[in-house]
Amino acid sequence: MENTALVRKLGAFVALSGAELSVLEGLHKRRRTFVAARELVHQGQSDQAAYILISGWAYSYKVLRNGQRQIVDFQIPGDFLGLRSVLLQISDHSIEPVTDIEVTEVLMTDLLDAFARTPRLATAVLWAASRDEAMVVEHLVNIGRRDAAERMAHFLLELGARLSLVGLGSKAGFACPLTQYLLGDALGLSAVHVNRVLRKLRELGMVTFREGYVTFDAYDRLTEFAEFDPTYLDQVGPLLK
Amino acid sequence: MENTALVRKLGAFVALSGAELSVLEGLHKRRRTFVAARELVHQGQSDQAAYILISGWAYSYKVLRNGQRQIVDFQIPGDFLGLRSVLLQISDHSIEPVTDIEVTEVLMTDLLDAFARTPRLATAVLWAASRDEAMVVEHLVNIGRRDAAERMAHFLLELGARLSLVGLGSKAGFACPLTQYLLGDALGLSAVHVNRVLRKLRELGMVTFREGYVTFDAYDRLTEFAEFDPTYLDQVGPLLK
Repeated sequence: MENTALVRKLGAFVALSGAELSVLEGLHKRRRTFVAARELVHQGQSDQAAYILISGWAYSYKVLRNGQRQIVDFQIPGDFLGLRSVLLQISDHSIEPVTDIEVTEVLMTDLLDAFARTPRLATAVLWAASRDEAMVVEHLVNIGRRDAAERMAHFLLELGARLSLVGLGSKAGFACPLTQYLLGDALGLSAVHVNRVLRKLRELGMVTFREGYVTFDAYDRLTEFAEFDPTYLDQVGPLLK
Repeated sequence: MENTALVRKLGAFVALSGAELSVLEGLHKRRRTFVAARELVHQGQSDQAAYILISGWAYSYKVLRNGQRQIVDFQIPGDFLGLRSVLLQISDHSIEPVTDIEVTEVLMTDLLDAFARTPRLATAVLWAASRDEAMVVEHLVNIGRRDAAERMAHFLLELGARLSLVGLGSKAGFACPLTQYLLGDALGLSAVHVNRVLRKLRELGMVTFREGYVTFDAYDRLTEFAEFDPTYLDQVGPLLK
């Protein structure tokens, strides 16, 4: 089944029935592929579709008039791309693939139809949106209140936990296609600063990011250091049986 | 009708039918009152309810171990308080009233039941949650990429637009119960810095915040200065007729 990542993710909130799974499967009709680094959704664009990410990574960002860029979040398999854009009529952000990606396109009308057929699925999608918002809140706290090393540590732990939920990571580590440039624009740090912070965390024996792989050398110590409390990711098991 | 603010707000997205209005009205069974400055929801708390704000202002925030506080957003009439907390099982943030507030309590089961009876209402609530997320994204960009004066200007314009939607503000201004201390914790500025920035904006003839009232002295110029593009608030009129 193509939507395994989404099923695993929503399954953390709702124990989906066979009928609900088949409605979810029905959303995966229009498969599309996009290449890395070519913009998928443009800030200010209207009438765009939402996508469910099947494989690969993407990121959402905003660009100010002076050219400064703030990366809001990265998307991994099982995540929606541009769900807000469909609901808000005009996209408040841009989306670009980090790697080549496979997605399925979801039209507003299909989503509404799926909600009508199974309200539990509507609640699960609202849960996923709430979780996305909780992550943006953490990124706000990150940039507003954490120093550079804590910020990086918190960010890598969050990615690790999200990837674990969809079977793409563990407390040992995860494959990570992000450049130092992308990390910097997400965390409000220069590339040089990113490099220095990663070296510091490695020398402290807590985490190593090398050759496209993040290794948690001391997961518990890193968690303590970053004050990382994963409850906001709400991965403790389904609330709705 | 008690939920006028929420009806006005959701009406910006969905033209609600009589039947949908009556389901929404049915959510307003348990009226409660809370006094200013006494915590309503505590970070880490579980099993709490969500609330719809009827009158007054509140704010959501996170506190780090070292005591630093980041205000995530302010809530005004028509907003949900703690909707994420209900869905995410454990609250990722705290909520405190700015003024005395009136709310109606909404249980998860009632919300699910309302979604089952009218999927369009589910979509409208998902829209409201998406809009909340879009605001947090703007706050992230604010703190990550805007200087203090732009940040304050953007924040006051956003509040003005939100209040206008529920009939509590206009392009002339709005009544505002926020202290400089609260403004500072939302914008990542000290109280002294808040004071200096407000004086600068006033001297530039763009906006005056005095005696609990924000007056837009030059709305268009302020909008240009802050690079405020209200499309992320999605108040252009209902998408779903």
